Amino acid sequence: MMVVDQSRDDASAASSKPPLDLYGLVEQLYPLNRSLTGDGVRQTLAIVARHLDLQIREVETGTAVLDWHVPKEWNIRGAHIATMDGRRLVDFADSNLHVMGYSKPVRGVFTRAELATHVHTLPDQPDLIPYRTGYYADDWGFCIPHHLWQSMTDETYRVEIDSDISPGSLTYGEFYLPGETTDEVLFSCHICHPSLANDNLSGIAVMTALALRQQARRRQLSYRFLFLPATIGAITWLARNERDLDRIKHGLVLTCVGDPGPFHYKQSRSGASIDRAAAHVLRHSGHRFEVLPFNPYGYDERQFCSPGFDLPVGCLMRGLHGTFPEYHTSADNLDFVRPEALEHSYAVVSAICSVLDGDRLYRRVDGRGEPQLGRRGLYRMIAGQREAGGATQMDLLWFLNLADGRHSLLDMADRANIPFSRIEAAARLALDASLVEDVT
Amino acid sequence: MMVVDQSRDDASAASSKPPLDLYGLVEQLYPLNRSLTGDGVRQTLAIVARHLDLQIREVETGTAVLDWHVPKEWNIRGAHIATMDGRRLVDFADSNLHVMGYSKPVRGVFTRAELATHVHTLPDQPDLIPYRTGYYADDWGFCIPHHLWQSMTDETYRVEIDSDISPGSLTYGEFYLPGETTDEVLFSCHICHPSLANDNLSGIAVMTALALRQQARRRQLSYRFLFLPATIGAITWLARNERDLDRIKHGLVLTCVGDPGPFHYKQSRSGASIDRAAAHVLRHSGHRFEVLPFNPYGYDERQFCSPGFDLPVGCLMRGLHGTFPEYHTSADNLDFVRPEALEHSYAVVSAICSVLDGDRLYRRVDGRGEPQLGRRGLYRMIAGQREAGGATQMDLLWFLNLADGRHSLLDMADRANIPFSRIEAAARLALDASLVEDVT
Amino acid sequence: MMVVDQSRDDASAASSKPPLDLYGLVEQLYPLNRSLTGDGVRQTLAIVARHLDLQIREVETGTAVLDWHVPKEWNIRGAHIATMDGRRLVDFADSNLHVMGYSKPVRGVFTRAELATHVHTLPDQPDLIPYRTGYYADDWGFCIPHHLWQSMTDETYRVEIDSDISPGSLTYGEFYLPGETTDEVLFSCHICHPSLANDNLSGIAVMTALALRQQARRRQLSYRFLFLPATIGAITWLARNERDLDRIKHGLVLTCVGDPGPFHYKQSRSGASIDRAAAHVLRHSGHRFEVLPFNPYGYDERQFCSPGFDLPVGCLMRGLHGTFPEYHTSADNLDFVRPEALEHSYAVVSAICSVLDGDRLYRRVDGRGEPQLGRRGLYRMIAGQREAGGATQMDLLWFLNLADGRHSLLDMADRANIPFSRIEAAARLALDASLVEDVT
Repeated sequence: MMVVDQSRDDASAASSKPPLDLYGLVEQLYPLNRSLTGDGVRQTLAIVARHLDLQIREVETGTAVLDWHVPKEWNIRGAHIATMDGRRLVDFADSNLHVMGYSKPVRGVFTRAELATHVHTLPDQPDLIPYRTGYYADDWGFCIPHHLWQSMTDETYRVEIDSDISPGSLTYGEFYLPGETTDEVLFSCHICHPSLANDNLSGIAVMTALALRQQARRRQLSYRFLFLPATIGAITWLARNERDLDRIKHGLVLTCVGDPGPFHYKQSRSGASIDRAAAHVLRHSGHRFEVLPFNPYGYDERQFCSPGFDLPVGCLMRGLHGTFPEYHTSADNLDFVRPEALEHSYAVVSAICSVLDGDRLYRRVDGRGEPQLGRRGLYRMIAGQREAGGATQMDLLWFLNLADGRHSLLDMADRANIPFSRIEAAARLALDASLVEDVT
Repeated sequence: MMVVDQSRDDASAASSKPPLDLYGLVEQLYPLNRSLTGDGVRQTLAIVARHLDLQIREVETGTAVLDWHVPKEWNIRGAHIATMDGRRLVDFADSNLHVMGYSKPVRGVFTRAELATHVHTLPDQPDLIPYRTGYYADDWGFCIPHHLWQSMTDETYRVEIDSDISPGSLTYGEFYLPGETTDEVLFSCHICHPSLANDNLSGIAVMTALALRQQARRRQLSYRFLFLPATIGAITWLARNERDLDRIKHGLVLTCVGDPGPFHYKQSRSGASIDRAAAHVLRHSGHRFEVLPFNPYGYDERQFCSPGFDLPVGCLMRGLHGTFPEYHTSADNLDFVRPEALEHSYAVVSAICSVLDGDRLYRRVDGRGEPQLGRRGLYRMIAGQREAGGATQMDLLWFLNLADGRHSLLDMADRANIPFSRIEAAARLALDASLVEDVT
Repeated sequence: MMVVDQSRDDASAASSKPPLDLYGLVEQLYPLNRSLTGDGVRQTLAIVARHLDLQIREVETGTAVLDWHVPKEWNIRGAHIATMDGRRLVDFADSNLHVMGYSKPVRGVFTRAELATHVHTLPDQPDLIPYRTGYYADDWGFCIPHHLWQSMTDETYRVEIDSDISPGSLTYGEFYLPGETTDEVLFSCHICHPSLANDNLSGIAVMTALALRQQARRRQLSYRFLFLPATIGAITWLARNERDLDRIKHGLVLTCVGDPGPFHYKQSRSGASIDRAAAHVLRHSGHRFEVLPFNPYGYDERQFCSPGFDLPVGCLMRGLHGTFPEYHTSADNLDFVRPEALEHSYAVVSAICSVLDGDRLYRRVDGRGEPQLGRRGLYRMIAGQREAGGATQMDLLWFLNLADGRHSLLDMADRANIPFSRIEAAARLALDASLVEDVT
């Protein structure tokens, strides 16, 4: 069953259709080499900027950000391991996973034993290339299939990594959509992984589409979308925006949302209302899902939910980091991510936005007894469950009973155990009949 | 297992025996034609008034009551469908369910096709007469078995409904029993259904017996018993008694309490203490039961629990409206209601009254350590569970431990997981021994 | 799995080794005849006092204590039932269970029928001697195997009980260990049972060892250990220490902790924090256990948790009084109690002490974002779960995330679902790195 988005402005099911080709964007971004910093990040953001009026921020190497400093910038032009007679066995041009992130430049001849200390393989998944980084390690490394490494039995190899780690800047993207209030919903995804499709081109694609959707709608709340290198990017953004963090009323980190597995929603540290909204949407989505309590390991919710900030930020995932076999390997590729999975993820986050943006407080103008629905044309057979603007008669009774200025629409939907869109439809009927007033 | 009523004044099991013949009263009321208004309602209340000093209220047609107006009065003298040669196929005299409630007068010859738009049947229960009303429909209708309708193949029929819908009044009954305080328990049942035995002659009979029981007892609380036409009756009563509603501390709607199915208690909107009392009694009743959360569909708890009043009113049922096959059909008859089911229902509501009326706060005169029970003749073998005035030694220990002025008797009974009557018996022992004082 | 004690001062697993021979102490105490009062109690306390600087208190017969009075002292030198020709069939010298506690002196010839009213047997356990007392009964009695009684078919027997019940005193022992604060943990065990090993020489032995352990450690809290005759002993102590009871922040009654069955922790009346500490330790102990809600029957928690005191006192048991077949019979002997069971019980109560004493509040010096662990040497592979001072990297992340001055260490351990000792180790790492400050 599809999640049907029935929020205020655009109640048709078609509204859950993404405003861009999600899988196409993943395909387009896939070949680029990304890391914490560097030109691959800039190219990635430039592609996103074709869809959104993205602000690209550059923060100079060495800038103090909270307990950290912005690192040097890493760029790489090529790398290979070749036989002594020049046959390239491993080539960065074939897969950017082949080189450990932030590898320092190296050129020379190494014995197999020397090389072994710089080679990473996955003995349990011998055909796959692992993904490894060494951000602050002052080291270099190659990541290759275990089978290949076992077949490399020469005494010496020619090795080259043509990279540099130099002062430069950290790059991130930010897109802000003002709403009727400055109360803000924060979305964030990490952009620092090279050719890994689910982790996290899926998040980039879904977030880009979501930003376009929200841009096209009337917005009660404001929305901010952050495209950040993990950890240091979030820390940098937090350091630069400390004064305005109290505007953030809800937040969601999007990651690994392209595989066809069940949804996982990880709750915020503080038990914020995003937790209820996400659980509500997932419960009515027709998809398999699990709600996980907060824990301090994961993605950038770690930074947003650190004790000094404690922002109301959860994390939406499908595959759970570290638990699916494709995680951090070359198998997290364009086959692992599915177009329909991306679309379902988009529909879910869209519905979450509709809940957050549409949640309001109503109060019956005269709450004494039930109003006479018949003379207002609002009375229908309840048993028949005939619909009136998407709401059943029972939905309307729930709304009219709970419209006391204390139950929000989400409170009502949860108490009635119906999708938010239906209680919202009931609210519209009652508002049109002047039975309630908005007391948000 | 019978619910054994062991409340203050009358601790014998015999006290749960109803003070009138419940089934006999149902039988007596069954033939009358009832609706929102009219002489059948008056006759019904007159029969109840043979048992109770019932106040009969008449409220004039057109009176504004909250969002509604008191409707015109409907009375009917007869109705039939006959063949052209005068053979009566359907006759109101056989069953008052045959005519849709509030049918306007009609007399004439109708083709079968014309008649079809006024005929209601139950194709899935072809031998039963459905129960239908059209209170504000300006229409007329007949309700007949589907088999009969299928056998009616003439081209034309003679039809007559000898009714009138005219200015008059709405009639309801009210019985009030003052107690030691003006804090009040409200009971309510609907009286607007014609020959339907469970829905709700059962409620009328049990409530009449309950009123007699409470009349015969010392009462801490005051009690009010309302015999109302559904919805408009409750709205009318609420409109006329708005100033005194804050006296209502507990309330219960009684309906469909004559069938032998499990009990269903529907909680109040506000989670009031009646919910705990009802659940406690049912848990210790030995009967199967289910506690249901509040919802805004059902009986007059809808009005009492509307947001502008939000009274502490639950609803006790056995068969759940709309879910048993006899519901709103001619099968809800004198066979469907059972004498012993009525008696069990009476025992349950009696026990609920005993809990509400008997719940008190006690405090140990000296709460330091356990009192020496031996020298007060209160020490018995606990393992042997020998009884002392209905309480075991363990009950007494529970009472003495929790008598701190903060735990009510119901709190204690629930924490000890014993029937209220046993903690009440323990309280009497301790009170007689001057170990506690009443600090209610 | 053993409970591994990793608290501040002594983090090695060896610390859970008891500082005395628990089973040896039980063996040593087993032969003594104990009751509410008398020389057997004094001898018992004298043996405990070889290990601890125990304060022995004597409270005169007749002293008013709360609702009670200190009883006369009971001493017994010998007792027997003999045939008319002098053959002793039952002799107190064989088992002190043979004589009902507080039997008054008797000497004479009794018919079997007369004797029968003074003989207690267990027909369902015909080989066992029951344990019976008649503290305030002004009676005498013998407790013998049912088989023996059935074989006694003579018409008359010679009976003697050489006892006296005279003014004297009630004796109890008290051991106090001051800590850095006067906030106090109260431990209590009953010492009034004769040759019953589990009930409660086990409690005496474990509590003695626990007192030695706490004496040898740095203590945040103060500790008080009470060796009391049941009920009247607790009441006497409470009466004499009423003014200082508010110092008691946690308390635990120890009883029946020597059998190899699962642990039972009975919660305090008030739901105090001892309940969380005990449940936490048991959950991570590797032993089977059950947490039971408070009830007013049991051991001296009945007095400590009476409503006028309502102290934060729970009760730790293995076998549950009244439910194991050896309970209050001669089968509760030195075979029923096992050395390793005593040691596991000691480890559990030690770990509870470590939680109570070590629980503190920390706050991150700068809680904004995660600190950079790498440059502090605190960054390790999380997947590999490498240990750092007993804490994993994940433990450290939990600690750093929850160190907000509001989550205690126990809150953190429960939220992370890890043993207290690991979150404590993480706290030490963070404290050493100046990442947090103690704000307890």
